[in-house]
Amino acid sequence: MKKSESDAGRFAYEGLDRVIHEKARLGILTSLLTHRKGLSFSELKKLCSLTDGNLNRHLQHLAEAKLIEVQKAGAGRNQSTTIRVTESGRKRFAEYLSVLESVVGDAVQVTHAPLTRTKRAWGLA
Amino acid sequence: MKKSESDAGRFAYEGLDRVIHEKARLGILTSLLTHRKGLSFSELKKLCSLTDGNLNRHLQHLAEAKLIEVQKAGAGRNQSTTIRVTESGRKRFAEYLSVLESVVGDAVQVTHAPLTRTKRAWGLA
Repeated sequence: MKKSESDAGRFAYEGLDRVIHEKARLGILTSLLTHRKGLSFSELKKLCSLTDGNLNRHLQHLAEAKLIEVQKAGAGRNQSTTIRVTESGRKRFAEYLSVLESVVGDAVQVTHAPLTRTKRAWGLA
Repeated sequence: MKKSESDAGRFAYEGLDRVIHEKARLGILTSLLTHRKGLSFSELKKLCSLTDGNLNRHLQHLAEAKLIEVQKAGAGRNQSTTIRVTESGRKRFAEYLSVLESVVGDAVQVTHAPLTRTKRAWGLA
C-alpha cells in the first residue's frame, strides 16, 4: 500500500462507531454477543466489572442507539431483566469489528508478524 | 471457557488504555507506528482527517502521556515539526493491541469463523 501524503484519511477509521468503540460498551456488547440467550443486569455487571450506575447509563445509550433491547418480566421483587443484542446491533457490531480488524492489521504490519504471533513477537506472551 | 456469573470481569478489558483507545488517537498512533521516521503535522492531519485544533489537542494529550514526542526544527516560516512514537509509547501500544486482539477474538468466537474469514462469514466482504 502507498504510504504518502496522498493517503488522505487512511487512518481516520471512519467506521469505528463511537457508540460501540467506548471501552465499557465494547465489553457489554461482546458479553451479550457471546451469550445469545441474553444476560441479566447482575450477570452483565459482574462480567464487565461495572457499577449499577455506569451499567445503567451505558445500557440506556446502547438501547437508544437500538443496539440492544431490554426485556422486563414479572413485577416487584420477582421482576427480572433480560438484555439482548438486537439484529441491527449484531450487524453494526460486525461492521465495527471489520474496521477494528483493519486497525489491528495496520498495527501488526509494523512488526511484520502474522496476527497470531504478535504477542509472542512483542514479548507479551 | 466457562461462561458463568463467576467469570467476574471477563469482559472488563482492563488493559484497554483509554488514552490509546480513543478513536482519533488510535488513528494518530497507528499512523506514527507505520511511519517509523515520524510524520509532520500536516501529513498526520491528512492521514487522520483531523482539523488543526483536534489534532493539536490529541497530540498534547499523547505527549503528556509520554506516548509521542514532538520535535521542532528551524524557526518562523521554516519551522518544521516531526512527530514520533516514543519507545514507551511503542510498548504501551503493543500491550493495548494484545487486549484489542482478545476483544476481536471474543467477538469472532461467536461466529465460529477463523479471524481472517470473519468479514466474509458476516457478509461484509
